Amino acid sequence: MAKEITNRTENYSQWYLDIVKKADLADNSAVRGCMVIKPNGYALWENMRDQLDRMFKETGHVNAYFPLFIPKSFLSREAQHVEGFAKECAVVTHHRLMNDPDGSGVIVDPSSKLEEELIVRPTSETIIWDTYRGWIQSYRDLPLLINQWANVVRWELRVRQFLRTAEFLWQEGHTAHATKAEAVAETLSILDIYTRFAEEYMAMPVIRGIKTANERFAGAEETYCIEALMQDGKALQAGTSHFLGQNFAKAFDVKFLNENNIEEYVWATSWGVSTRLIGALIMAHSDDDGMVIPPKLAATQVIIVPIPKPSPEIGEAADKVMKALRAKGIRVKYDLDDKKRPGFKFAEHEMKGIPVRLGIGMRDLENGQVEVARRDTKEKKSVPFDGVADYVAQLLDDIQQNLFDRARLFRDTHTTKVDNFDDFRSLIETPRPELSESWGGGFISAHWDGTTETELKIKELTKATIRCIPLDAEKEAGQCILTGKPSQGRVLFAKAY
Amino acid sequence: MAKEITNRTENYSQWYLDIVKKADLADNSAVRGCMVIKPNGYALWENMRDQLDRMFKETGHVNAYFPLFIPKSFLSREAQHVEGFAKECAVVTHHRLMNDPDGSGVIVDPSSKLEEELIVRPTSETIIWDTYRGWIQSYRDLPLLINQWANVVRWELRVRQFLRTAEFLWQEGHTAHATKAEAVAETLSILDIYTRFAEEYMAMPVIRGIKTANERFAGAEETYCIEALMQDGKALQAGTSHFLGQNFAKAFDVKFLNENNIEEYVWATSWGVSTRLIGALIMAHSDDDGMVIPPKLAATQVIIVPIPKPSPEIGEAADKVMKALRAKGIRVKYDLDDKKRPGFKFAEHEMKGIPVRLGIGMRDLENGQVEVARRDTKEKKSVPFDGVADYVAQLLDDIQQNLFDRARLFRDTHTTKVDNFDDFRSLIETPRPELSESWGGGFISAHWDGTTETELKIKELTKATIRCIPLDAEKEAGQCILTGKPSQGRVLFAKAY
Repeated sequence: MAKEITNRTENYSQWYLDIVKKADLADNSAVRGCMVIKPNGYALWENMRDQLDRMFKETGHVNAYFPLFIPKSFLSREAQHVEGFAKECAVVTHHRLMNDPDGSGVIVDPSSKLEEELIVRPTSETIIWDTYRGWIQSYRDLPLLINQWANVVRWELRVRQFLRTAEFLWQEGHTAHATKAEAVAETLSILDIYTRFAEEYMAMPVIRGIKTANERFAGAEETYCIEALMQDGKALQAGTSHFLGQNFAKAFDVKFLNENNIEEYVWATSWGVSTRLIGALIMAHSDDDGMVIPPKLAATQVIIVPIPKPSPEIGEAADKVMKALRAKGIRVKYDLDDKKRPGFKFAEHEMKGIPVRLGIGMRDLENGQVEVARRDTKEKKSVPFDGVADYVAQLLDDIQQNLFDRARLFRDTHTTKVDNFDDFRSLIETPRPELSESWGGGFISAHWDGTTETELKIKELTKATIRCIPLDAEKEAGQCILTGKPSQGRVLFAKAY
Repeated sequence: MAKEITNRTENYSQWYLDIVKKADLADNSAVRGCMVIKPNGYALWENMRDQLDRMFKETGHVNAYFPLFIPKSFLSREAQHVEGFAKECAVVTHHRLMNDPDGSGVIVDPSSKLEEELIVRPTSETIIWDTYRGWIQSYRDLPLLINQWANVVRWELRVRQFLRTAEFLWQEGHTAHATKAEAVAETLSILDIYTRFAEEYMAMPVIRGIKTANERFAGAEETYCIEALMQDGKALQAGTSHFLGQNFAKAFDVKFLNENNIEEYVWATSWGVSTRLIGALIMAHSDDDGMVIPPKLAATQVIIVPIPKPSPEIGEAADKVMKALRAKGIRVKYDLDDKKRPGFKFAEHEMKGIPVRLGIGMRDLENGQVEVARRDTKEKKSVPFDGVADYVAQLLDDIQQNLFDRARLFRDTHTTKVDNFDDFRSLIETPRPELSESWGGGFISAHWDGTTETELKIKELTKATIRCIPLDAEKEAGQCILTGKPSQGRVLFAKAY
């Protein structure tokens, strides 16, 4: 197999698309802006979903399913929400096709026009809060801790597989609470789950923070987020958790009788992560040889390659190894293909990011050992047959940890404190020779005067945006890098996906 | 809690809707024809999905995800398919909204009209076969065994929760094969999976059969199905598996080079089951006191109710029981509510169909026993604390088996061989006093002359349709009940959902 992946330093965007293609994660479709998630990509999403789902359920959440369609008028109920979501969306206007009288196919039956157009959900706050009105009467009905796994559509003009597509898959949690404090606590508790998921499963360190008013979810009082740094020095928002106040309760008239028998509006949160996380996973860990998948999310954690090809003796040895690995809960496969050469297979499995490869040849059998190769560092080591299961189990943990450490080191060494606008600009604009031409500049920690005006001006001048006000930011008096006005603490800037 | 479920004998349709409502399975939504699947209903679907997904994966299938939208012209590519699916569907014609100049909300932006309308998928053969063209070149790329869990939309005028809704959730398998024999084998192997799932998990006996040409999937060469009998004597199609021949390969130009280097069209299958199975589950087992859920699909298999209310001593005993049950993999919950009386809770848990209820009161503690009540027969028994886990584990198996046996007995005693049209008609039309006014007549095994004309005439006269030609039907010469023409074997008629 020829190496068909562009180097990151040459063309980072092309490298990303090459990985998606060569690791068989996704394909384009005939529908503009919509992609096909191929089995390898979907297996990643399933592992992410199952893990998150477990974490949601452990904290008392349950799943439900709400309609795909939203009546157009619902979007106008919450003033900010409509500005954010009613613009680029898929609009259903008719419900029937008919044969074209000219015999050439089907056309829309004009008599099937809907009285009110339906919008394919870009997010479901409106339809869900319209439903909650019927479910909540008393404080005894609260909290309502509901999540939904679903597809959503936002009409995007410029798309990039996983990162930005018209249709994508996600989960959206929508909770209802009796008090503001409880809703805020829920918002933060979900941010904790997202953080643990990103760091422990995706091996991707994140900064937890609050969005500025300008970057807030349309209809939220406060948006919390986790932000990760990609290998090209650009940030990626990996998850958001919104405290919605009573905005949607007021828009959809959802009230409850509290313990003192007084009627109040319900407090809300919403939160989501999407298949965009697969894009993040690629850009956090992969290299010029292909995908690198953290062991905890890999559909296949270990691949066994017979050298030079399958034989009964090697098959027998492989069976024993597989049995021992499976007894430890390790997901292992045996490469039975007898047409491809080992070198070709090695490249293929590296391309797809399988964390550990075991090579077994006749000489290995004679020596009672297996060759173990790890995907992250490419190191190889011969390990005695008897100890291979223990060795591999530990190795998978090491790889998981190494990916996290490596990504954190990268993030930390590419986070810069900056105290004036010239430095800021040069950091953003100077290409790094050791990295891609499209180097984003990393995270920049700088003072900002707190106004949307300044935030937008900086964006206009540099394309960098405020990713978040970090939750763990220290209080520190300073001056805004653009206006020189006083600031109480640093915020995190970056160019972003 | 007042008994709020209509008796089946009084009004079967209302009974069904009452169960859906009282067992908290689903709710209506603001969108015509679309329902909200509530957490209890969705938990059932999750259990069904997980089980089916495991069975699909064990037989080599993988999951993927294809676009929600289908270009309108795709539907016309396969001549039968367009007749079947292009009629009542949701049509996306625009991709943007704008503020209404009169300030009253948002309107469709006329400038955002799509060049080609998009249809919200009613089923995905067309978009998937358009994609497969790029994935299949050689016999080495086959078979392709792909499944998708997704939402689909078919614009229905008359809806009934779970049984018929505009949007529903389902899985759709789409496989591609090098030979006809292999594709037919796949179709049948999936029918086996559906049968095992229906019988072993849903405890719902099914008849396996072939659809007549008239009832065949639009675009299929042969449609296999499983048919179940509901308590009102009507049939419900619980799953279909289609042998598609080369129809879609020809329509989307999907060819491969076979081992002899000769180009051929690819052979196809597709198959699906949907959230309609939840409707089937309700109508197969539930009674006038509420839902009855087979233990294997119940989110909560055992509920422990403290009598008369929670106390530290009872809580301690319940903890021990829960630990013992969980060690056996049994899903158990403790009812901590201290406001409701036991009788009220009993009725509530019966309504929701929890298979086993354990009652623990102070006297039980003194006597070292637990009261065990099974949902299916309402029998109660006192069981010593020490043996309760073993007893309950066995009881759950017994309930699962009893539900199946009961449903099979019902099915068998309501399947009638009929040899003339008068008997046929009277069977269909005579209400059974012991059952609902809307009694459907059960399955009727009768001779048919094999023509669509006769099939449609019988339907017109009686509303009964041919559910299937059973796979295990014996060869038996006879005469069509309507026309008297010769027939080679009996087919299965019924009124159907």
